[in-house]
Amino acid sequence: MVKLSNEMVEDFAKMKIFPFATASRNGDPNVIPIGFCKLQEDRETIWIADNYFHKTRHNLEENPRGAIYVWGPEIKGCYQIKGDFEIKTDGEEYENMYKTVKKMGERFPAKALAIMKITEVYECKSGDGAGKQLL
Amino acid sequence: MVKLSNEMVEDFAKMKIFPFATASRNGDPNVIPIGFCKLQEDRETIWIADNYFHKTRHNLEENPRGAIYVWGPEIKGCYQIKGDFEIKTDGEEYENMYKTVKKMGERFPAKALAIMKITEVYECKSGDGAGKQLL
Repeated sequence: MVKLSNEMVEDFAKMKIFPFATASRNGDPNVIPIGFCKLQEDRETIWIADNYFHKTRHNLEENPRGAIYVWGPEIKGCYQIKGDFEIKTDGEEYENMYKTVKKMGERFPAKALAIMKITEVYECKSGDGAGKQLL
Repeated sequence: MVKLSNEMVEDFAKMKIFPFATASRNGDPNVIPIGFCKLQEDRETIWIADNYFHKTRHNLEENPRGAIYVWGPEIKGCYQIKGDFEIKTDGEEYENMYKTVKKMGERFPAKALAIMKITEVYECKSGDGAGKQLL
């Protein structure tokens, strides 16, 4: 596991929507915009709510890996974050996510909590340094 | 191959940066922001310039599949587009891309042209219809 730096934590906090990529076991890539993507206090764990996942959920069940990036207007850096996933549909962590999501909107089903443990961080700013592993 | 609808073409034209997902042959997903992503007149082909690809290029070489989504401020719909890829580093199409990229900025290396043939389009707007195959 790796912990995000202070600068990365600041950038992460400014993101409203994250592109979230997964892949099927046979390597078919998928990418969707997600709203509930919360870095936890340990800086190495990210909680993602499954409200309307279909291919994404199927992919995570059979191939628990994912990638997001942190980039956009008002964000200094551009970081790609990869990690390993665990899906929770009950227990304390799931209940915590469920309550938070329901406060945001009663309509959201909050079907599952996808917990990402960060394994690598890469530079994704355009230029010769792009793709370099940072953490 | 499938052709984008009029509405999708209009939305596509408003996008400035696209999230672009690929995966390694063993299913490790990757996602990066890309600037040069041009729908061609046939509405079923997309040209993507490789300026600074690393993992993305490696993935496309060993597993020629990719996904993008069309969504953002001022964009009505939310569509995920998947397709099959071919990489070109010479020939007429590559030369056309090279000239266009160099006009945008002499610093861009324009190393390769990744040609995507659209195979599927999915709904990715939040809600019960998310994940539905549209085309």
